Amino acid sequence: MTKLNVVGKNVDRRDGVDKTTGRALFTSDMFVPGMLYAKVLRSPHAHARIVNIDTSEAEKLDGVKAVMTHKNGPKNLFNAAAPMFLTVSHLERVLDQYLFDEVVRYVGDEVAAVAATTEAIAEKALSLIKVEYELLPAVFDSEEAMSESAPELHGEKGCTSEGKNIPGEIIKIPYGDVEKGLEESDVVIEKKFTLPIVKQVQMETQSALAQVSGSGEVTIWSTTQTPHPSRSIIGKIFDIPASKIRVLAPPYIGGGFGVRIGLSGLAEPIALGLALLAKRPVKIVYSRKEDFIASDTRHPATVTVKLGAKKDGTFQALDMKGIFNTGAYCGFGTELPGVCGAMTLAIYRIPNQRYYGHSVYTNRTSSGAMRGFGNPQGNFALEQVVDMMADELGMSSYELRMKNIMKVNDPWCLPFPCLSTELAECMRQAGESIGWENRESLKASAPHKVRGMGMAVGTHVSNAWPFCVDYDNAYFTVQSDGTVHVASGVPEMGTGVCTSLVQIAADSFGIDMDNVSLSFGDTLTTPFDIGSHASRTCYAAGLAIKEAAEDTRQQIFEYAAPYFDVSPDSLTLQNGYVFRSSVSATDETSIVLLDDVKAHPEGKVSLEDIAYHAHVRNKQFMSTGKIVPKNAPPWHVCFADVEVDTETGKVDVLKLVAAHDVGTAVNPIIVEGQIEGGVVQGLGYALTEEIRYNDKGVQTHNQMHSYMLPTAEDIPVMESIIVESHDPTGPFGAKGAGECSLVCPASAISNAVANATGVRFTELPLTPERIFAGLHQED
Amino acid sequence: MTKLNVVGKNVDRRDGVDKTTGRALFTSDMFVPGMLYAKVLRSPHAHARIVNIDTSEAEKLDGVKAVMTHKNGPKNLFNAAAPMFLTVSHLERVLDQYLFDEVVRYVGDEVAAVAATTEAIAEKALSLIKVEYELLPAVFDSEEAMSESAPELHGEKGCTSEGKNIPGEIIKIPYGDVEKGLEESDVVIEKKFTLPIVKQVQMETQSALAQVSGSGEVTIWSTTQTPHPSRSIIGKIFDIPASKIRVLAPPYIGGGFGVRIGLSGLAEPIALGLALLAKRPVKIVYSRKEDFIASDTRHPATVTVKLGAKKDGTFQALDMKGIFNTGAYCGFGTELPGVCGAMTLAIYRIPNQRYYGHSVYTNRTSSGAMRGFGNPQGNFALEQVVDMMADELGMSSYELRMKNIMKVNDPWCLPFPCLSTELAECMRQAGESIGWENRESLKASAPHKVRGMGMAVGTHVSNAWPFCVDYDNAYFTVQSDGTVHVASGVPEMGTGVCTSLVQIAADSFGIDMDNVSLSFGDTLTTPFDIGSHASRTCYAAGLAIKEAAEDTRQQIFEYAAPYFDVSPDSLTLQNGYVFRSSVSATDETSIVLLDDVKAHPEGKVSLEDIAYHAHVRNKQFMSTGKIVPKNAPPWHVCFADVEVDTETGKVDVLKLVAAHDVGTAVNPIIVEGQIEGGVVQGLGYALTEEIRYNDKGVQTHNQMHSYMLPTAEDIPVMESIIVESHDPTGPFGAKGAGECSLVCPASAISNAVANATGVRFTELPLTPERIFAGLHQED
Repeated sequence: MTKLNVVGKNVDRRDGVDKTTGRALFTSDMFVPGMLYAKVLRSPHAHARIVNIDTSEAEKLDGVKAVMTHKNGPKNLFNAAAPMFLTVSHLERVLDQYLFDEVVRYVGDEVAAVAATTEAIAEKALSLIKVEYELLPAVFDSEEAMSESAPELHGEKGCTSEGKNIPGEIIKIPYGDVEKGLEESDVVIEKKFTLPIVKQVQMETQSALAQVSGSGEVTIWSTTQTPHPSRSIIGKIFDIPASKIRVLAPPYIGGGFGVRIGLSGLAEPIALGLALLAKRPVKIVYSRKEDFIASDTRHPATVTVKLGAKKDGTFQALDMKGIFNTGAYCGFGTELPGVCGAMTLAIYRIPNQRYYGHSVYTNRTSSGAMRGFGNPQGNFALEQVVDMMADELGMSSYELRMKNIMKVNDPWCLPFPCLSTELAECMRQAGESIGWENRESLKASAPHKVRGMGMAVGTHVSNAWPFCVDYDNAYFTVQSDGTVHVASGVPEMGTGVCTSLVQIAADSFGIDMDNVSLSFGDTLTTPFDIGSHASRTCYAAGLAIKEAAEDTRQQIFEYAAPYFDVSPDSLTLQNGYVFRSSVSATDETSIVLLDDVKAHPEGKVSLEDIAYHAHVRNKQFMSTGKIVPKNAPPWHVCFADVEVDTETGKVDVLKLVAAHDVGTAVNPIIVEGQIEGGVVQGLGYALTEEIRYNDKGVQTHNQMHSYMLPTAEDIPVMESIIVESHDPTGPFGAKGAGECSLVCPASAISNAVANATGVRFTELPLTPERIFAGLHQED
Repeated sequence: MTKLNVVGKNVDRRDGVDKTTGRALFTSDMFVPGMLYAKVLRSPHAHARIVNIDTSEAEKLDGVKAVMTHKNGPKNLFNAAAPMFLTVSHLERVLDQYLFDEVVRYVGDEVAAVAATTEAIAEKALSLIKVEYELLPAVFDSEEAMSESAPELHGEKGCTSEGKNIPGEIIKIPYGDVEKGLEESDVVIEKKFTLPIVKQVQMETQSALAQVSGSGEVTIWSTTQTPHPSRSIIGKIFDIPASKIRVLAPPYIGGGFGVRIGLSGLAEPIALGLALLAKRPVKIVYSRKEDFIASDTRHPATVTVKLGAKKDGTFQALDMKGIFNTGAYCGFGTELPGVCGAMTLAIYRIPNQRYYGHSVYTNRTSSGAMRGFGNPQGNFALEQVVDMMADELGMSSYELRMKNIMKVNDPWCLPFPCLSTELAECMRQAGESIGWENRESLKASAPHKVRGMGMAVGTHVSNAWPFCVDYDNAYFTVQSDGTVHVASGVPEMGTGVCTSLVQIAADSFGIDMDNVSLSFGDTLTTPFDIGSHASRTCYAAGLAIKEAAEDTRQQIFEYAAPYFDVSPDSLTLQNGYVFRSSVSATDETSIVLLDDVKAHPEGKVSLEDIAYHAHVRNKQFMSTGKIVPKNAPPWHVCFADVEVDTETGKVDVLKLVAAHDVGTAVNPIIVEGQIEGGVVQGLGYALTEEIRYNDKGVQTHNQMHSYMLPTAEDIPVMESIIVESHDPTGPFGAKGAGECSLVCPASAISNAVANATGVRFTELPLTPERIFAGLHQED
């Protein structure tokens, strides 16, 4: 391994200048000659059959070049959720969706799409499409949807049902003997919690531009987080070989948070379907409202936790049940309940555990992936119950957690070992920062206000393996001037990978970052990778890059060794120079040419010289790194200091402290950005964010002004603490860092509210109405 | 090796539909947001010093965003001719050019460039630039330029001169003992020939669009034939690491014929220089006139041939001298004279040979690469002298050639063996087609007309190695659906490689062409390659693809073998199925899944099943093919039947027959297209095409209407004959096919004119004026 020069440093982001000067290109900026603009006609009904659809007037409109409906659209069933397309486990893939179907299953479902020479003409054309609907009974609530009287959303088509409207399978995680564990517990607490529908609200709405060449080769500029898997689904929908489809970002994507995994929103296949019909490029950019109603939300859920402990606080048994409302289509409906269970069960050392979870179809916008992927729902429920258990046992909730949290190599239910954790240290540092030990003496700012503190802990994954297929490849190519190009299949959706992966490449190889370029987010320029999600990007793509770099180093040592008259393993490469390992790396005076090196045994040869020397001898150094990431748990804690106005029910968060063990922080300021961003999303999850529906299944909170995203004004004092461990499985010890930050904040804030008010709330968000009602109920 | 399914077949061109429907994109079609338009101010003087240049008025013009001159342009010397940048031999690279210099050396040399929001504003801005020139003495003729009184064009800067205005070195090829050979000859004939300045006149003029990201990453859409080498030169000019520069075609290029090797025309660095100054993308599209005056022409030359033979016709000695006018900058001025010598000396088995050649600077537009690269000049001279020798010996020129042409494994001066030649068969078939045996009894169509027949033979190369660096790489990637993506660094400039390379990939691997896609012409998506020239594309890139495909096949056999319970070498892959080699390939009834194959020993498993089986086990099949092509000589002959009007001097070509040994013709109709196109260019070289200059060094024939390119009306009856050999060094036996066709036609036509008129002409083109004067002189 080389000396670390840039890994661990706050290197400037490579996308920084372009993004701050407005020069960075996103899909909506794209233009190709002859391009058409598309608009989508969406269902006004929650559940209906299209009895008749007449597009003739729309087709006659000047400038309209294609109209697509269920009559002429592709006829292959698919599942728009990408990587689990690749599921390795026993789970059957649920294929329940057509691009356009004659049944619509939620308000916003696709009925038709138009491509025209201008957006205005496309919009006008939508109004000329006449649709006759036969209304079908609709159901919105998970419990109701499973009842005997509920309408069937998909029947048998594409679903192996274990109950009415249950897609796929029920996830069961057995571990030890829960019944026995509960029996042997001194205290058992059981509680059911309700989690709301929230949205990713990424900056850039879903959009795509599709172009088809005369020989049938497809290019799609897209806002996807998963270029390669998205390509696979598109291929299946249209029966086009994967090799003939290029999916790329141009090059940036305005945020993701999970909503861009696979084809959530369907912008890509709609653009492609129209491009195939019109034989011209087609671009589609969703409005914010469309993005709200027609792309995946987080799964609303009810989670029941039953926790048993000994009097001394030792956890004995954990029994969990999660029911997830997946909306109109399954998507990740089989996988996400599993992740909720696995991640929640993995926090504490509990010998007896059980989890039961599944999704339910309803006539709502589909749920899907959102940062945390089931973990926030489970974490919220368990961490409330842990606090309740502490109260019941008369212990400090801090001490109760410290007693039970996982240690390195503790047995657990996950299929990979825990080889690193600094969760205890995270707790210590964050607790100290927020002043946990003075919790009892906190003072509120007014007589009608109460103040309290809460905390929560959690874990997550560093990639998707072994839950689903997850492998990563990288190309590593040395140019004839000794500079390096690296290609990785992950996209840059704002998480900083276009910088952090270059840091890993530079230090793995032994050269300056300035001499490394990276291509990313393009299926044509990069080898296969499952995309940017599952907190995997830096960890898994970084591992592939590191392996490729190390293999290429070895090629260089083998090429240069005869000139140095030593064995390849006696050479090193650092700061762009190759020299004998025994020679001082810092001596700048002894730079010689490769052909002269034998006469200068202390000599250092520039990589530029070696690369050009090889080049004029018809040789290029390059390698392909291929890895299967082992996975590793990051650990995290959030502490909240809150004040609750008992007259209005309003919760003011005074301070949030998050401490994260992400292994090695490759670029600490980027990790801090990840922590801060997630904590703010967690604040919204806790207090304000919720998509609500009226009784017709229409979203009533589908715009920025009605969906209460925290703004700069709402953000409290925050502290982000990085507690580094060195995980042996990650690149330079790194672990996942992308999702953890959104897992615990709502749990901690709710615990703080309970601490302040003495009332345990079981439903998010903690709106003033809900708090006020809760306080009132207590009276 | 697999059974050939598509190699050798007239498969439809993959770029056909897009190009015929106008949907194919070229550089001039490109648009990126914020793009500026550039124009170039060019020198009106053949040789001058810029004493003062005032751009202040231009800069003040509304819409002007950057002005570049020698004051603020990059300051690195370069040579715009690309691949020889990579010369491995003893030849020193001549670096003699700045992007903008304070001395201008030809009419059209770059003085300034402007980037503005519209083309009209950029044009207007040029007129506001005030330039004060100090005129310097100019020289236009090679002989004069070497004389004592001539001005020095470059002094010592960048040139190691062996004489005045001789850039680089004098090329000397010694082989045997020429003096002794001439002494032992019964007949010696010596003659000097003069070759004109001709132009490639490719359909698309030079153009480029350059974009620079905030982190300094450069993208250049370009009309280059050599994406990777062009990138190297751009890097040197601007001191930008090669890894940070992406050069690509978008995806097509409108013809090349050599003028796009390297940076001839300088559109790319001008666009980039302005983009760096303006911090916005900059596009430049040359006018036809600019393309004529400011991008490379073919080298005009004088070639002297001295040939000695025994009375029985056995060639004893060949002494050749070539002087090439390279114009203002050296470019390929050191390499091209060498290729002229090597290719001309290689045609016949002559034990004693010598070649002496070099370039000379003059104040004309630079000469550079054009289809044939020095070979047509040398071939014309030698093939005239061979006909003169036949006349002198009283032999048929056909028999004289047949007696002396190279045979397989004959010794020669080239650094690789001749392992295949069907030149004799080419002569037989073409001779029969044109009716050579009736040559003596040909009748003219009118009393004042005379008719005659001529022939010429030649060879060429199949790539550039071992004359310069030439290696090739390919990526070969199997997608999870079993389809394949291939990446090759060569561009598609109209030669059909986007089809023929896919044919090679499909048959090398054993799948349908429909399941293979190809990326090309993009330094980011492809590994290193030296570009499309030297007749190398199908040969060298094809070899790399074949090697990569075969390695990937092996990976698949190794993966599948345990399931089949046989060793990997007992498996085969054909038509997309893997099965035991012992099983019939045509049985379609026995398709089984990989996991079931042991129970069905006759079973065939689809590649799709194997790829997906591996994919869900975290494995992707992929390989990088890396080859150094060995080189092989293609052979060719041209026969011409002409009629000469003795009253006007006009030559009518009645029929042209070309027969080519290109090894295996991967796609015969594409090869025929290559032959026909080259023959027509050869017709223009013979009869009409010439750039002339006035005495101020101004081109007087620099537009389509004055430069006499043959049009459809001028094209005679033509026949293209392919005589296949199987060269052991090429992919499926293929050899180079791109350039040969332009080498012999002028030689053959001139021999036919001599046969018809009895007059030997020594200067091309054979214009009516020149013929008339020649016939008159004879009187």
